[in-house]
Amino acid sequence: MEQRISLVTLGVRDLARARRFYERLGWTGQTVSGTVFVQVGAMALVLWGREELARDAGIVDAQTDGFGGVALAQNVRSRTDVDDIVEAALEAGATVTRPPGETFYGGYAGYFTDPDGHVWEIAHNPGFPMGEDGAITVPDFGDADQAPDLPA
Amino acid sequence: MEQRISLVTLGVRDLARARRFYERLGWTGQTVSGTVFVQVGAMALVLWGREELARDAGIVDAQTDGFGGVALAQNVRSRTDVDDIVEAALEAGATVTRPPGETFYGGYAGYFTDPDGHVWEIAHNPGFPMGEDGAITVPDFGDADQAPDLPA
Repeated sequence: MEQRISLVTLGVRDLARARRFYERLGWTGQTVSGTVFVQVGAMALVLWGREELARDAGIVDAQTDGFGGVALAQNVRSRTDVDDIVEAALEAGATVTRPPGETFYGGYAGYFTDPDGHVWEIAHNPGFPMGEDGAITVPDFGDADQAPDLPA
Repeated sequence: MEQRISLVTLGVRDLARARRFYERLGWTGQTVSGTVFVQVGAMALVLWGREELARDAGIVDAQTDGFGGVALAQNVRSRTDVDDIVEAALEAGATVTRPPGETFYGGYAGYFTDPDGHVWEIAHNPGFPMGEDGAITVPDFGDADQAPDLPA
C-alpha cells in the first residue's frame, strides 16, 4: 500500500452550508451528484451527506455529532497566518475550540470546528519543513524504533 | 487560506497497536514524544492518543468509538490493487465493512476500519486522473454553481 491519502471525505448534514463555509474561507469546490469536490494540494477534500457516506462505507452511524477522533491540520507560514485564518473561520461560522496560542512543541496554533463539528488545527510549526507549494516533510526524528541505517 | 491539508491526525486508543497496523500495511512511521508521524505524499498522517488530541483541540470527547463522519480514501491503479489492499488490511487486523465491489460511479472499491474504527476506502476510480506519484486531480465537472469563465 503506497504511503499516501487521495481523498478526505467529511460527512455533512447540509451540503450547501458546508460548501458555503469552505468557500467563505476562500476555497473553490465543484458540486456533482450531491457531492462537493475541492482540490487540496495533490488530494481532494470531499463533502458528502453523512448518511450517504455511512451507507456507502457499510457502517452504522450512531448519529452522535461529537468528536470522531480525527483532526485535519493546515500548517501555515507565520503566526499571523494562524490568527488570520482562525479569525476568518470564526466569521465563516466555525466554532473556535482553542484560540491561537503557544503549543507544547514550540509552535503556535489554534483549533476550530466546521459547521458539522469536523476539527481543524491551523498551526505554525517551525520544526516541520514546508515547501513553496505547501508540501510537508516529516523531519528525521531519529526514531529508536526504526531499523538503523546500514553502514555505507 | 490555501487549498491544502498538511496533516490528518487519527486519535487512537493504543499507539503501539495503531503503528503496528499501518506498518503491517507496509507503511513506515516514526514515534516521537508519544506520537507517530507517517509521511503520506506531501502530507503527514499522525497517530496520537485520542484523549490527548481532544484535550489539545479543546474538545470534549464523548468517548463514543463509532463513526465520526470522516473517511479517508486511497485511490489505486487497478481493481486488483483494491482487492489486494483490502485483503492485506484484513490480515493486519482491519474490519472490512464493505467488501470490494462495483461502485455507483463506475469504479470499484472496498472499505475497512482500522483498529480504532477510522474509516478507509480503497478505490479504483477511472474518472479521477492520478499522476505517477499518486497525486489526484479533481476533474472539471462543469459545476453549474461555479462562476462562469469570462470570455477571452
